[in-house]
Amino acid sequence: MKAVVIAAGMGSRLSSIRNNRPKPLTRLLGLSLIERVILTAREASIREFVVVVGYLGSMIKEELGDGSRYGVKITYVENHEWQRGNAVSVLKAREVLNERFLLLMSDHVFDPAVLKEVRDLPLDEEECLMVVDGKPDDYIDMEDATRVMVREGRVVGIGKGLREYNAVDCGIFSCPLSLFDALQESIGQGDETLSGGMQRLADRGRLRAHDMNGRFWIDVDTEDAYRKAEELLSRALVKPTDGFISRYLNRPVSIRFSRLLVKTSITPDAISFSAFVLSLLAAMLLSHGDYLPVLAGGILVQVSSILDGCDGEVARLKFQQSDYGAWFDAVLDRYADAAVILGLTYGWWIANGDGPGVWLAGYLALTGSLMNSYTAIKYDAVMSKERNGQGWRFGRDTRSFLVMLGAVFNQLFCLLVALAVVANFVSVRRLCVLRRV
Amino acid sequence: MKAVVIAAGMGSRLSSIRNNRPKPLTRLLGLSLIERVILTAREASIREFVVVVGYLGSMIKEELGDGSRYGVKITYVENHEWQRGNAVSVLKAREVLNERFLLLMSDHVFDPAVLKEVRDLPLDEEECLMVVDGKPDDYIDMEDATRVMVREGRVVGIGKGLREYNAVDCGIFSCPLSLFDALQESIGQGDETLSGGMQRLADRGRLRAHDMNGRFWIDVDTEDAYRKAEELLSRALVKPTDGFISRYLNRPVSIRFSRLLVKTSITPDAISFSAFVLSLLAAMLLSHGDYLPVLAGGILVQVSSILDGCDGEVARLKFQQSDYGAWFDAVLDRYADAAVILGLTYGWWIANGDGPGVWLAGYLALTGSLMNSYTAIKYDAVMSKERNGQGWRFGRDTRSFLVMLGAVFNQLFCLLVALAVVANFVSVRRLCVLRRV
Repeated sequence: MKAVVIAAGMGSRLSSIRNNRPKPLTRLLGLSLIERVILTAREASIREFVVVVGYLGSMIKEELGDGSRYGVKITYVENHEWQRGNAVSVLKAREVLNERFLLLMSDHVFDPAVLKEVRDLPLDEEECLMVVDGKPDDYIDMEDATRVMVREGRVVGIGKGLREYNAVDCGIFSCPLSLFDALQESIGQGDETLSGGMQRLADRGRLRAHDMNGRFWIDVDTEDAYRKAEELLSRALVKPTDGFISRYLNRPVSIRFSRLLVKTSITPDAISFSAFVLSLLAAMLLSHGDYLPVLAGGILVQVSSILDGCDGEVARLKFQQSDYGAWFDAVLDRYADAAVILGLTYGWWIANGDGPGVWLAGYLALTGSLMNSYTAIKYDAVMSKERNGQGWRFGRDTRSFLVMLGAVFNQLFCLLVALAVVANFVSVRRLCVLRRV
Repeated sequence: MKAVVIAAGMGSRLSSIRNNRPKPLTRLLGLSLIERVILTAREASIREFVVVVGYLGSMIKEELGDGSRYGVKITYVENHEWQRGNAVSVLKAREVLNERFLLLMSDHVFDPAVLKEVRDLPLDEEECLMVVDGKPDDYIDMEDATRVMVREGRVVGIGKGLREYNAVDCGIFSCPLSLFDALQESIGQGDETLSGGMQRLADRGRLRAHDMNGRFWIDVDTEDAYRKAEELLSRALVKPTDGFISRYLNRPVSIRFSRLLVKTSITPDAISFSAFVLSLLAAMLLSHGDYLPVLAGGILVQVSSILDGCDGEVARLKFQQSDYGAWFDAVLDRYADAAVILGLTYGWWIANGDGPGVWLAGYLALTGSLMNSYTAIKYDAVMSKERNGQGWRFGRDTRSFLVMLGAVFNQLFCLLVALAVVANFVSVRRLCVLRRV
């Protein structure tokens, strides 16, 4: 399935941000708006794109190229009449399409999940699908939104001036080829908006509505909307599996940091490695034994734990996630965990004595910590499948936070014993829980 | 797809082993022959069985029941004329079938992989498929085998007395309903063997041959064949991913032990747990520090490593494999590894001194050992998919063997250093290798 992306307009309302570049090239959290649309669609396995360009189209062409950089194929259609309504832009794509296509706006930001749904929905051959937001009151820019009236799953009315409405047009469509006839008809009658063509399909009962169901989307049309888009994308970085410490302490900080990092070319792997080096540094400080270096080491462990969230966040914001990257991060995290526990053990031993007690405690804490991560691979997979949730965790966020507390209160031995007891208990408990699942 | 299993005959040639019970109930490595056929077919997702019984049929019915014990559905068809040829037995199943079915012999043992192939092969509606062994010279009981002549993928001749042949009938078929007409025709002409009916299909060009391709199979008809079947099933327990120590030292012993264990009701999980307890015992002996207990501990580690192979072997021989069982074993193995390394470390420390050197070495050995297992999950999965092999391993078999050697030569410190170096090297190497895959 091909996707047509409309990128012909000028975006005058966003002039303060777009710096004399065409609006689709406006950068938002590390990607231009149109890059984000293309990469979002790629998540739904769309591999061929038709981009309709107009205002400063050559700049867009130059920046996106043939798409090979994104692993997709991009062809361009020119619309020199870009100052006319957007129906004209859509019509320009007619010549290069011969089957149902997705229609997307280059300046909309939305949850990738919705495209997978749209792609998989069974539609009649002549049916057009419009994604709508059924909670129009929550929308930021209602004045400029295209209003929609939905009845029993079908769009019956559409237009900016609509008096009675119960939804908003999200600018995401699955279109039959017959849309072009409807557009031509509408243009012939003097209405050059895409909505005009859609209204004609609606009149024939051929425009189905599909609700966003609370997923995020926004038309980045104004500075307010731009900031809101940043906000929405940032909020989506919180994972449902995030633990308490991660959610309320680490994420708020790491996301702020990631919003800076995406503007650089630093890769997620480099961030993983930096967090690892920070942990090694922390381990060296902890191994010193005196309070001040131990305190500094403890705080550094927490800093590293926060930074450890950034690799995944940057990867998701820039669509750079990879299986290898996630695994690379996980393996480095385990070695970092081991180094920190060794640092704690050695530090206490240096400062306090020669008995094997602390070595035993450190040994058990290390075993527990690594077994926690080892058992989590299976446990999390089963839990998210069978119980639609994450089950009990004693995650790295919590362990790192405890290390910091232990350092602050200079209770390294108690900390090691606590880690040993809780981490091993959690691991053994998983053996029992999964037996029953 | 249903499977018809012929279990009506008496099996006079196997009388010394079958103890006055019908031949299909002859026990072989923990399962009766017919149980093994049913469970083999279950591996290929066959869930419905029609068992044709005759000689002592009530005993078979009593033992297998309705199949719920095996997670399948079994219905029975009686053949009181079981002393006639086997074509008569097959014909009795006609009334309960209304589509293509698998036809299996209750006394054949074979590699489960072949049934998955047979199930998935696209066949013409009227085509019958016979699995054949294209290397007849290797077959143990050529005198009694049903010979087959294959030309260009089709069977052209079939029969025990065939002078010219290039294959042997393996007793595994995928049959269209029209087989029944062919059988009736053959019986009418005085030939009551299944081969007679098959020959009629062959004459019409409707009997396709599918080669075993070196996979194991055997008709358990004689005492020799019975022993050979045990041999073949045992040999199949060696995994392609087995390391050197496992393949040439552990497996030969563990398989022998598993062949005894399958005759008991001891579960694979119980074996895993026993091996774990043995490792804990070994760790306690190692931690003593004196040579004799350390030696005993080292040997016990190797014994436990051998026993650790039996859980999987028994599970595979009795079709009791489970995801949970494999994971339970893996987690216990990790804790056993940790206990043994702690035992070694503590033992050397007790015997030789108070410096942190041995604790550091033990610490790094523990980290390396657990990280070896942690990284193997991903590494083995990628390697078996991408490179059709296992890649480099420093597996538990090798580590346990090294522990034994270290104990025998009383070089616990060197051993810990060696484990620390090699195990961590292997783990870090995987980070680099997978980056390039």
